[in-house]
Amino acid sequence: MTRVLHPMSFCDHIRQCNKYDPSRFVPLTAESARIGLLRRDNAEALRRFPDVFAVAEHKVELVASGDVAAVSRAVDAVVDALVADGRVPKWRNETFDAAPRWGDPPVFRLDRGAVPFFGTRAYGVHLNGYLRQGEHLFLWIGRRSPHKQIAPNKLDNLVAGGIGNEHGVGDTLLKEGEEEASIPTSLMSRAVSTGVVSYRMETRLGVRDDVLFVYDLEMPGDFVPKNRDGEIVGFELIAASTLLERIRTTSDFKFNVNLVILDFAIRHGLLRPDNPEYLDVATGLHRPLE
Amino acid sequence: MTRVLHPMSFCDHIRQCNKYDPSRFVPLTAESARIGLLRRDNAEALRRFPDVFAVAEHKVELVASGDVAAVSRAVDAVVDALVADGRVPKWRNETFDAAPRWGDPPVFRLDRGAVPFFGTRAYGVHLNGYLRQGEHLFLWIGRRSPHKQIAPNKLDNLVAGGIGNEHGVGDTLLKEGEEEASIPTSLMSRAVSTGVVSYRMETRLGVRDDVLFVYDLEMPGDFVPKNRDGEIVGFELIAASTLLERIRTTSDFKFNVNLVILDFAIRHGLLRPDNPEYLDVATGLHRPLE
Repeated sequence: MTRVLHPMSFCDHIRQCNKYDPSRFVPLTAESARIGLLRRDNAEALRRFPDVFAVAEHKVELVASGDVAAVSRAVDAVVDALVADGRVPKWRNETFDAAPRWGDPPVFRLDRGAVPFFGTRAYGVHLNGYLRQGEHLFLWIGRRSPHKQIAPNKLDNLVAGGIGNEHGVGDTLLKEGEEEASIPTSLMSRAVSTGVVSYRMETRLGVRDDVLFVYDLEMPGDFVPKNRDGEIVGFELIAASTLLERIRTTSDFKFNVNLVILDFAIRHGLLRPDNPEYLDVATGLHRPLE
Repeated sequence: MTRVLHPMSFCDHIRQCNKYDPSRFVPLTAESARIGLLRRDNAEALRRFPDVFAVAEHKVELVASGDVAAVSRAVDAVVDALVADGRVPKWRNETFDAAPRWGDPPVFRLDRGAVPFFGTRAYGVHLNGYLRQGEHLFLWIGRRSPHKQIAPNKLDNLVAGGIGNEHGVGDTLLKEGEEEASIPTSLMSRAVSTGVVSYRMETRLGVRDDVLFVYDLEMPGDFVPKNRDGEIVGFELIAASTLLERIRTTSDFKFNVNLVILDFAIRHGLLRPDNPEYLDVATGLHRPLE
């Protein structure tokens, strides 16, 4: 357990996920709709691609034309150059849709590794797998592989994953549940959608503008999750009260998993109005979309 | 059932509760901490009380000094004059605390009727009383008395009430549960805190800056709520799916009760990611505190 030297709080995790200074970013637009957020130095780096992006002082406009496939190819050529420059990490070979809003047709498809550079909104699913034993709740918690690019070795929800292009929320949950924890479809069909955790966080590469679809699933007492894709090295069943204290005092969990578990704790009455952080946590987990 | 002529949406109710233009308001401060929000014309109306409020262009400072009782008396004298002017409705004889933040010691106590004029934050409790029948959820819904000052005849949660000064969240819930629906302490002790609904809404009098502590209570099948205080004229058990459609298409519910039931629907998987309004509802019910 990695204890930090200064005392932490629940809200420290929320603040960490919402560290964002709008003055450092300009909008990326397509036909006047915002589809991303570019840090000013990243925007400058796009000046060499005038056929794809028109860089102005207060915005960057996508100017590549054609259908989704054509625009995606044009953006991919830019990403290739950005990877060569070291501004974008190596190709993940998994693409996310870039669109003004969830449900809108995509303007282009973007390699996952380049998402923070362009600040396009990314969507994920997180599943709280829990057990009820009398009055007490327990959650299944996974430990991320040391080989993960993001948050290696950190603790994670039972199931979590990004929603790639051409996938919906439900089928991503099914696929990730099978790969990450061997949860059969029959069990996953009992998962309940319970809301959204959203935040906007500057990173070394740009900004994560993330929306997480949150699900709860009450797990049978005899089910033991088994990872299949090598992304999780093991699972542990932990009492919710222990988890909360660990969230409050450590950085053991992946940054956004702290928020998903806090949301679970608020919804299930584990974190209650008598806690001095209650109001800030309950109102801090859902950044309004814009 | 009052059908409106234009088609409504879930988000219309959220927008209605968040209709707030910051340029029309100035902060009310006490020792440099903000404790309220004054519409500019209301701020001007305070110029005649220079011993209590110092009105500047961009803020109003509380200058009455002394302990809470002394400051409250000074503010009460102002409220008396505002009631005489018709700027504040008649005395409610129920006081709310004015403080920079929940849990802070109060700066003064304010008659409930004057709260929107000063824009001090008001806190309430709302209880979703629900039953599970197989796969279906039902909620107990009350109809407000035609004599209520706010939202007469509108539909309401099973229990709801403002948190007066010297009361906490839990004891307000117990007291209101007993008065409004005859819920005994033994049953109410099973209520689960599930989060917060918050919004900021301009009204004719000023602004409501409201925080609602939300609770769920699974009701026994044989319990029938009975009102004791005359504020609710009757209760009805309604299927959640019927409720949602009624919220979407009518203004039958009190403005903020729409939001509390939408929050219930999000948390219980009744409103799901395949609904086009899902993200906006899930992220729109929790205005960040500031």
